[in-house]
Amino acid sequence: MYSYEYLQKFTENVFSKMGCNAEEAALCADLFLSAEVRGIPSHGIIRIRDYYKLFKEKRINPGPDIRIVHETPSTAVVDADRAIGMIAAHYSMKVAIEKARQCGSGWVSTRASNHYGIAGYYAMMALEHDMIGISMTNANPLVAPLFSLSKMLGTNPIAVAIPAGKYPPFVADFATTPVANGKLTVAAKRGDDIPFGLLQDKDGNPCNDPAILGQGGSMLPLGGDYEHGSHKGYCLSAIVDIFSAVLSGANFGPFVPPFVSNLKANEKSVGEGTGHFFGAMRIDAFQPASEFKAKMDEWIETFKNASTTPGHDSVLIPGEPERLKEIEIRRDGISLINSVAVEIKGIADELGLEFEVR
Amino acid sequence: MYSYEYLQKFTENVFSKMGCNAEEAALCADLFLSAEVRGIPSHGIIRIRDYYKLFKEKRINPGPDIRIVHETPSTAVVDADRAIGMIAAHYSMKVAIEKARQCGSGWVSTRASNHYGIAGYYAMMALEHDMIGISMTNANPLVAPLFSLSKMLGTNPIAVAIPAGKYPPFVADFATTPVANGKLTVAAKRGDDIPFGLLQDKDGNPCNDPAILGQGGSMLPLGGDYEHGSHKGYCLSAIVDIFSAVLSGANFGPFVPPFVSNLKANEKSVGEGTGHFFGAMRIDAFQPASEFKAKMDEWIETFKNASTTPGHDSVLIPGEPERLKEIEIRRDGISLINSVAVEIKGIADELGLEFEVR
Repeated sequence: MYSYEYLQKFTENVFSKMGCNAEEAALCADLFLSAEVRGIPSHGIIRIRDYYKLFKEKRINPGPDIRIVHETPSTAVVDADRAIGMIAAHYSMKVAIEKARQCGSGWVSTRASNHYGIAGYYAMMALEHDMIGISMTNANPLVAPLFSLSKMLGTNPIAVAIPAGKYPPFVADFATTPVANGKLTVAAKRGDDIPFGLLQDKDGNPCNDPAILGQGGSMLPLGGDYEHGSHKGYCLSAIVDIFSAVLSGANFGPFVPPFVSNLKANEKSVGEGTGHFFGAMRIDAFQPASEFKAKMDEWIETFKNASTTPGHDSVLIPGEPERLKEIEIRRDGISLINSVAVEIKGIADELGLEFEVR
Repeated sequence: MYSYEYLQKFTENVFSKMGCNAEEAALCADLFLSAEVRGIPSHGIIRIRDYYKLFKEKRINPGPDIRIVHETPSTAVVDADRAIGMIAAHYSMKVAIEKARQCGSGWVSTRASNHYGIAGYYAMMALEHDMIGISMTNANPLVAPLFSLSKMLGTNPIAVAIPAGKYPPFVADFATTPVANGKLTVAAKRGDDIPFGLLQDKDGNPCNDPAILGQGGSMLPLGGDYEHGSHKGYCLSAIVDIFSAVLSGANFGPFVPPFVSNLKANEKSVGEGTGHFFGAMRIDAFQPASEFKAKMDEWIETFKNASTTPGHDSVLIPGEPERLKEIEIRRDGISLINSVAVEIKGIADELGLEFEVR
């Protein structure tokens, strides 16, 4: 087990060594640790190795000139100059929030970026400003659209954070696929089958082998198959792709560069880097904030107290599982898989940092 | 078979008799006929009876004072004064478009409205202005959230329309459930089973009986069950509900009034009427319009030409099936189920209008 503070400080030091200034390094560490404590370890410490390799291969720019290249009162395009995605996304969301402060809402499409970690982090930045926050990103292709055999879309997550009053905020943060890629990796390592309806093999047949992505197979969009609505999951993922990449001038669909360090960069490019899309809407651009929050409390109570299926005490409110996980992990500490800890130790040695394998 | 023009003129006359002015009656007719030709008859002529009964019971206001009650440069709340939803939605989307013209984007949340027909219609209004259009609405409860037995959410559709260049626009228009309620009605009438994964019975068991909604059962969110991602469909539907109703001051979740005429109004109200949410973003608030459209053409070509599963010639682009259906139906005419035509004839007689049962 590691304490939050130990891993936070270590991650900060890694990013400092990679050329980030103090503020940027702290931000990246906060993103990695947020993923760990919210129970999304696939976007946590395990990914340090990918960021470090991309840095060594000069596929990310440690000293980027991130800037607004076009704007209106309520919109902007940000060019991230190949920054670490977390730094690009944090900058872009701040632009969206400032625009919302000025004219009610702000919408930012970002290009020339990289993997940005957990989508919900940026959406949640809006909460302290009494705003609704929205965040989405495209990602390297793993998902076949309806009736296709080809990996054309990423897991393209959407996050929406909405302030409440006496209750914690509503925070939805979900990939537009039935399952996260990280869960497949874990199942494959364990040799477990997974349910049908999540994957297809290279010929388009339903498949329960979590390792099929490496054998020409692909993930299916949310819905799974046509009769269960996978055309809707495909639409949703496509909207994320277009808002993130076509609006900004980033690579779309199958051309999104891989952030996983053992995959090569694409041969063809149709834009610059990875794309994101952010939104912020001031609550009081619609309703007085206190009234809105009281109504959100009523919404949360209504759903929380709905009758439940056998074996469940209450209906979950989006964001609640991650919040409960965070309380638990901040209390108990963070555990790393031994092979991950060993890998991190190797990086620490290369960078001249201390790291203890526990 | 009926010609487009015959049903269009007839529907216009019905709405004129219900107290709409000429412009409003033409708009409502256009909405009903758009649903028919786009292959969504569940929102077409069959629904005239519901609107007519709601009108007779004074649950819709034929002479509403629709107005903006709060606004910022990029946002507004519209109070629809219990208008026909189509008239309220058309007004609101025009406000969103005008705000986008002024400051890049416009976002409108609408309360005290009613059923608004097909979501895609309003999203598509943005296209001729070189804008992206967004439309969503809550609806009377049919859907149980993850781990609940209760109908808490509507089929809450989302539509997004995005302009392209030489190709027709990208138009996604989908309910946040795996299947539309209209399809269940048809299956129940035919005595067909439907696939598992769309419905649950009153105890939360998987169910394939399309009539189960009348026996305490409920629809499931997109994803179907937890292991296939239904928590994501629940999140999506909840977001539509909150944007449409909590932002505007309409009824949310289980309190949304039914528009189906044989269902009674709710006993409890937490806001005014049904809620909608609309967005418009000027393309050139992000990219020069010609560059964006050329890139969208490239996006469409890339996806259209992806390798296909056996039995399919090409990957579908969102909006394509409805567009092909429209060409076919405008050529061949519109057929009505005999019982629907007979019912419409009864309404025509009451209103002193001509209608021929064919």
